Amino acid sequence: MGTTQLETVPEPKYWHLKTVLSEALESEFSVGEILPNERDLAARFGVARATLRQALEQLELEGRLQRRRGVGTTVAPPRVGVAVGTEQHAWPGAGNDVWQAVDCAVAAPPAAVSAVLETGREEAVYTVRRSRVSHGQPVAAELLYIPASSVPELSAIDAPSGPARARAVLRELQRLELEGQESAVELGSARADDAKELDRLPGAPVLVVTTRFLADGRTAALSVATYRADTCRLTFGDSGGVEIHQDPERRAS
Amino acid sequence: MGTTQLETVPEPKYWHLKTVLSEALESEFSVGEILPNERDLAARFGVARATLRQALEQLELEGRLQRRRGVGTTVAPPRVGVAVGTEQHAWPGAGNDVWQAVDCAVAAPPAAVSAVLETGREEAVYTVRRSRVSHGQPVAAELLYIPASSVPELSAIDAPSGPARARAVLRELQRLELEGQESAVELGSARADDAKELDRLPGAPVLVVTTRFLADGRTAALSVATYRADTCRLTFGDSGGVEIHQDPERRAS
Repeated sequence: MGTTQLETVPEPKYWHLKTVLSEALESEFSVGEILPNERDLAARFGVARATLRQALEQLELEGRLQRRRGVGTTVAPPRVGVAVGTEQHAWPGAGNDVWQAVDCAVAAPPAAVSAVLETGREEAVYTVRRSRVSHGQPVAAELLYIPASSVPELSAIDAPSGPARARAVLRELQRLELEGQESAVELGSARADDAKELDRLPGAPVLVVTTRFLADGRTAALSVATYRADTCRLTFGDSGGVEIHQDPERRAS
Repeated sequence: MGTTQLETVPEPKYWHLKTVLSEALESEFSVGEILPNERDLAARFGVARATLRQALEQLELEGRLQRRRGVGTTVAPPRVGVAVGTEQHAWPGAGNDVWQAVDCAVAAPPAAVSAVLETGREEAVYTVRRSRVSHGQPVAAELLYIPASSVPELSAIDAPSGPARARAVLRELQRLELEGQESAVELGSARADDAKELDRLPGAPVLVVTTRFLADGRTAALSVATYRADTCRLTFGDSGGVEIHQDPERRAS
């Protein structure tokens, strides 16, 4: 394969190609525009298709490109800052909560969740599913695990499932005094159901935010929220967040 | 290729394989153990190698496997919780800062950084490089951008570069009254220099934490910290964080 332009560069070829592609995206393409197909791109930059694909994957990781089945590769809009509250502690569903309750089920949670909630191995807990939309786009899906002991007065007369039931569970939870909350963010891959809700393919990279809500000296509720990693920047702190995204030119500094 | 076990499953093959592999990791392998080669694994599970590779990539994203050049694929230890302070605001280098100053340069930052710092397009700023080690492992690399206007009294007599110079810049910065700080977390890919410091390949997925330090009504310093996404869980909040990691069984709930 002809690789004339890139042969003398000491860094990996796809890495240099990424920088070149990144500049081309900036100067020649607008947001939402569909890129030429891989064969044409590889020919234009004089690289093997495997090299091109690696560079495209990098740019996808960095949120510069989006690959959609049946559409092709498009230039991504800048990532959206999504506030993840850690400063003002509040129960899910309280105050100006941005999440929408979707459903509520009663089921035995995964073992790792039981361990945190200190419930028995097969003990069923309320499992509230919620979703979060930002700028008209689904950005996150959440499973909220609440043991029966956290909502002892919950009336069984309500709807057995659905959003109304979910809201009833959250209202009961809010009767407890919230003593604190802790969150963690890590990289994960989208499960099939979350992927569908987030309009992604299963296995797409996601940011998983786990939040433990503390009351009566124990974990009264546990939230596992899955954010789209391609379109979201999670913001923490005083205001709307930092308006800077990872810059491809940064490496030049 | 024979795909007898997986043919009837309605979800993507690699996804089901991921679950099966995940269970095998749990029951048959210990942390640090090297997996059999791809050909043997593909044969054992009766899948094409492309399918196997997709499943391995998922498990790598989730922090279950590590792939290292010259070593092969090994079973990863559980991710380490790394505290990212958002509650107690403090200048870099103040108090019990966990970061180690490595070097200090004076250079024009990338355009996106200049924009946040409101410095001129080609104006040089102090660029402090720091590194963070947790449990004896490098977990993060940071570039900290500080405009000269934030450290007006900085003496030019000190060492011109190196960790001593970096510490002198941070000491000067700490004279300002910190008014607030804001952070954002997003997915990125490791630049070559960060990758080397983090013992990863260039382009590996990383969690990029951008923090803006506010003083005198403007951004007095900007930190861009790159955390290993394979080994780290970033924790926020009251205590050492949430001791739950994304559970492969969770999808069964």
